[in-house]
Order: sequence, then structure tokens, then C-alpha cells
Amino acid sequence: MSNINRQIQLASRPTGEPGVENFKRVDIPIPELSEGQVLVRHHYLSLDPYMRGRMNDSKSYAQPQPLNEVMIGGTVGEVVASKNTHFAVGDSVVGMGGWQEYQVVDAQQRGVLQKVDTTHVPLSAYLGAVGMPGVTGWYGLVKIIDPKPGETVVVSAASGAVGGAVGQLAKVRGARAVGIAGGAEKCRYVVEELGFDDCIDYKQHQDVRSLSAALKVACPQGIDGYFENVGGMILDAVMLRANPFSRVAMCGMIAGYNGEPIPMTAPQLILVNRMKIEGFIVSEHMAVWPEALKELGTLVATGKLKYRETVAQGLDSAPEAFLGLLKGRNFGKQLVKLI
Amino acid sequence: MSNINRQIQLASRPTGEPGVENFKRVDIPIPELSEGQVLVRHHYLSLDPYMRGRMNDSKSYAQPQPLNEVMIGGTVGEVVASKNTHFAVGDSVVGMGGWQEYQVVDAQQRGVLQKVDTTHVPLSAYLGAVGMPGVTGWYGLVKIIDPKPGETVVVSAASGAVGGAVGQLAKVRGARAVGIAGGAEKCRYVVEELGFDDCIDYKQHQDVRSLSAALKVACPQGIDGYFENVGGMILDAVMLRANPFSRVAMCGMIAGYNGEPIPMTAPQLILVNRMKIEGFIVSEHMAVWPEALKELGTLVATGKLKYRETVAQGLDSAPEAFLGLLKGRNFGKQLVKLI
Repeated sequence: MSNINRQIQLASRPTGEPGVENFKRVDIPIPELSEGQVLVRHHYLSLDPYMRGRMNDSKSYAQPQPLNEVMIGGTVGEVVASKNTHFAVGDSVVGMGGWQEYQVVDAQQRGVLQKVDTTHVPLSAYLGAVGMPGVTGWYGLVKIIDPKPGETVVVSAASGAVGGAVGQLAKVRGARAVGIAGGAEKCRYVVEELGFDDCIDYKQHQDVRSLSAALKVACPQGIDGYFENVGGMILDAVMLRANPFSRVAMCGMIAGYNGEPIPMTAPQLILVNRMKIEGFIVSEHMAVWPEALKELGTLVATGKLKYRETVAQGLDSAPEAFLGLLKGRNFGKQLVKLI
Repeated sequence: MSNINRQIQLASRPTGEPGVENFKRVDIPIPELSEGQVLVRHHYLSLDPYMRGRMNDSKSYAQPQPLNEVMIGGTVGEVVASKNTHFAVGDSVVGMGGWQEYQVVDAQQRGVLQKVDTTHVPLSAYLGAVGMPGVTGWYGLVKIIDPKPGETVVVSAASGAVGGAVGQLAKVRGARAVGIAGGAEKCRYVVEELGFDDCIDYKQHQDVRSLSAALKVACPQGIDGYFENVGGMILDAVMLRANPFSRVAMCGMIAGYNGEPIPMTAPQLILVNRMKIEGFIVSEHMAVWPEALKELGTLVATGKLKYRETVAQGLDSAPEAFLGLLKGRNFGKQLVKLI
């Protein structure tokens, strides 16, 4: 075992689009464990769109990522040393270890580190379909959209870790699932592998009118629920097809992450269609996680919830992989493999 | 009693701002009553912003007002002839009689005509504080905003029939009530007569930044609930001061009634602040009307819910009075008195 921990820190805040120069690698010694602490060796890091928001120094629902500190992020790994009676060497664990190879965890605090069972669910899935992205999709779909059988649910970024879960969970509930994704290959995957009823390639549509016309074809009964990961033109187009009493779960607006204006063109449709639009952050709803993880874990273990992973190799690949994620270059859940 | 019924019909649909030329007066004979019918002589017509939407031939939550038919609208009056055992000559009634002096009502249909008690509540109040506008304010405040004591509720068009009820009902629930209205006189009325904690004259603010700064002063703890009657710049300014988990009841967007674009500039704030925005139409929530009317009636009868009326005299004054309402020239509830 190495006694050096390599980590990626935020070196500077981006102005507009971020680049690799905003990150730096730092090597630091691994300290001795104190009583109650656990040393975790990370197998995978999770890369997620929310991290882009943390890079800005602006008011948001979370504190900004501090400069010159390890980048925040979910991790799975194994316990390699332990001074805590609840964790043994070899245990598989999920936590918020950040962009680094090792983490010393004060495991006495409840909830900072969770043991997970890898008998039926692969370790990496605890960062995706059976982790934060899966629960995010579950919360927006189940607690905000709450689809009835026969209703139509649309989700943007449908081939991603969150979007893929949304559509498949909607299908389980008897709803029609329609995805929006970038490119023919992703759309084919969404329909053929994930089992959505249809998927629209937004890159084929230059304006709201064109995308809205495609939505009309894909959603002949209109749209009852929309899970928003993108914003901008896509939200405008969906609102033009929204049914009375439709629900929008607002999870992310990646179209505006670099400060681009993303106005909602016709908010009067909220009134005309008596819509409900609700923003949420899944970490503020911890009470539903056990219920959500139980369903997600069962569906993955039985092969009924499918997902894809894009895996970058080695810590140093994390910044490039993250920038690619922001441009939609990944396919499914973006991970960094460290061992 | 006259045997001529004079009515105002919609003559043409406006392109942009409506004018008196969109209306026409028609005199028709009053037919003989059939079994079950009641003849009502209207004392007051209600003029309301929602009528502007009905004048357009566009998709909305309600059918457009048909051309060459009597304009839709709420009415109060008295029964002057009856072939229905449930209604006697002299009964005070509220209904949807439209812009006309008399109406023959098929009173066998449940709910089309309601007898009201004018012992403690004036007849005209059943078109305002104890009628559709009052219930509208009640529904948005109680069922969507649901303010907790100490929270701050903002309402636009605060001196109007709906807005005035919203703020006073918020005060009853221990919340801070802040109005937005047009002009110093209306703002003074909102604070001094209706008892709001503060009121902002939007005419003193040319842009979002200025209005938002005024809201910061009036709402030192931020905004937890917003009742929207206007839209456009006012909604943008409120969203900049919205607290986490704030709720917006979307009731009307008069700023866009003539087709003006009224984009929501920063919908990402819905996510950042985990807001809930919900559009509603009070006529779709008939189940809550008894509960709402009971509270509103009691508050009016005991002098705790105040309101003001602007009364135009005579049927022929209705079109001008309605156009004035759309420009905010009324003060409180706009009525047309017919007797």
C-alpha cells in the first residue's frame, strides 16, 4: 500500500467554460489513523453535473467548492485500514471521498460511510443507478411527477445516469417514457436498451418550433410529466406540449451552467395549463433514500433497471473526463476508475 | 318591469390591446319562463381580468368567449319572477349572468344560482371578497403558499379584489404581508386600510434591479410566498429575493394579456432555491369553496377583511370600465351597478 495520497484540487474558478487549468494534482502523505477513523482506498470516483455549479463562487443551494481543496464527489472503495469497530478491512463502502485515491474517514459520524453489498449489485452501481443519480431520478419521478398509468413522461439527458433511471421507473409505473438525448447513438440506446417508448435527438432540431413538433409526434397524448436536466430551448419546447395539470421536476439546467441566459419564454403556460414546477436537491430528502434504494437495488439486481458506464482510467484523467461530461461526451454514468 | 333585456356582446376579437369597438350592445325581449326557470334582475356585474383572456381565440384553460354572445361574468341580483320552488321573488342570488340586465336561469341545475344572505354581508361583496376573487386569493394563499407564522408573503396587484384578500389572509395567519401596486395612493391604501406591513409602488421602478432592491428593503427576511397576478418584470424581481423552499401561486399574468412577451429571465432560480410554482384556476377547486367562503364571510361580517369597490353606473359603462380595469384604473373590486 502506498503511503502517498494523490488528489485533484480546484486551482481556480472558471470564467465561462471551465478547462483543465482550473484543476491541479497534489500529492500528500496519508496520515496515521486516530481512534474511530477508517482508511478507504477508492475504486471509483463519480463525476456529476452538479460539480460544475460548485466551481462557481455564486449563491446556490450549496457552498462553493473551496479553492485549493480536494474536489467534492461520491466514491466507492474498500476499507484498507480501520480503527473503527463498525468497519473491517475489506468492507465495500460508499461515501463522499472526493477526487482522490484514498480518504481518511471519521467513521463515527453516522452516514458519512455506508457499507454496501456487492453480491448482486456491482460496486460501481452504488455511484449510479443504486446511488445518488438513481435516487435523484426516483425522487423527481415518484415524489414530484407521480405518473399515473397511461400518462406520458419526458426526460432530458435521457441516456445519462439520472435520465435513464427516470424513464425506466416511469415504465415500471405504466407510463409512456420519452427521452431527449444528443445524437442518434444515444437515442438508439435509450429506446433499444433502456426500453423507452421513443427518444428525440435534440441535435436534429435548431429551434423550439422544430423540437416541439418532434415532441408532438413522440407524445401524441401530450406531456404529463417532465424531468428537467437541461433547461433552455428544451424546456420551452416541452412546455408547448404540456397537458393540463402537468408536473415538472426541476433537477438541473446544464444549459445555463456557464452563465448563458436561459429564459423560460412563456411562463404564462404554467397558468394556462395549471402546471406545477418544483425544484429539488436529492440530498435534502434523505428520508426517502431507503425506499428509493430498495426499489433501485432490486431492479438492478434483477436486471430490470439497465444502465451504461463510461469509465476513465486513473486519477489524472478526472478533469478531462469531467469536462467531457459537461459537453455530453460520456455515455451513461461517468466514472473514474482508480485501481 | 321592463320586458327588454339589454346586454353587451363580444363583437370582435382584439388584436393586441382591446377597445370599445370590440363590444356591442344588443336589446332583446325577455322570454316567458318555462317550468323550473327563474328570472333574475342583476344589481351588479363583476368585471375581472380573466375576461381579457376569454376575448382571445387561443388555447387556454377555458373556451373563448363566443362572438355575438353576451359577455361572460359573475352577477348578483334579485329574483323578480320564478317558476322554481327553490327560489322566491325577492331572493338575493349570485350567479354567472354575464353583462346584461336580466337573465333567465334554468335553476334546476345545481349550482348555477346561489341564494345569499345579505344580513351581514353586502350583496356586492359576493362578487368580491366573499366571491370568486376572495376564494381565488384564499386558494392560492392557503392551498399553495400555505404560509407559516413569521414568513413573508408578497402579492402583486395588492389593492385589487384578489390581492387585498391575499395579504389580509396572510396577516391572519401570522405572516408578514407585502404588496406591490401601482401608484402612491394604492400603496397607502394597502398599508393603512388593508393593514399590509409594506407596499411597493412598481411605477417607481423602471427595471428589475431597482424593484428587486425595493423588495429587499420591504422583505428583510426574503420572500417565502408569492401570489402572482401580473408577471413579467415583477416576477423576475420577486424571484431574485425568493427564499429556499418558497412557493409561488400563479393566478394571473396580466402583463402578457395583450400578447407581450413576458419571459421568466432566470428559471434556474427555481432549482437554486428549490421553489415550487403552481398555476391554478379557482373554478377547478369547487370542493374548497365552502371552507373558503365561510372564513371570508366571517371576516367581512366582523370587519376584519376590508375591501374597496370601484362602481361604474349602467350597463353601457361596462366596456370602458373593463378597459380601465386592464390598465389598473380601478381601485379595488371593479363593479357595474345596473339599478
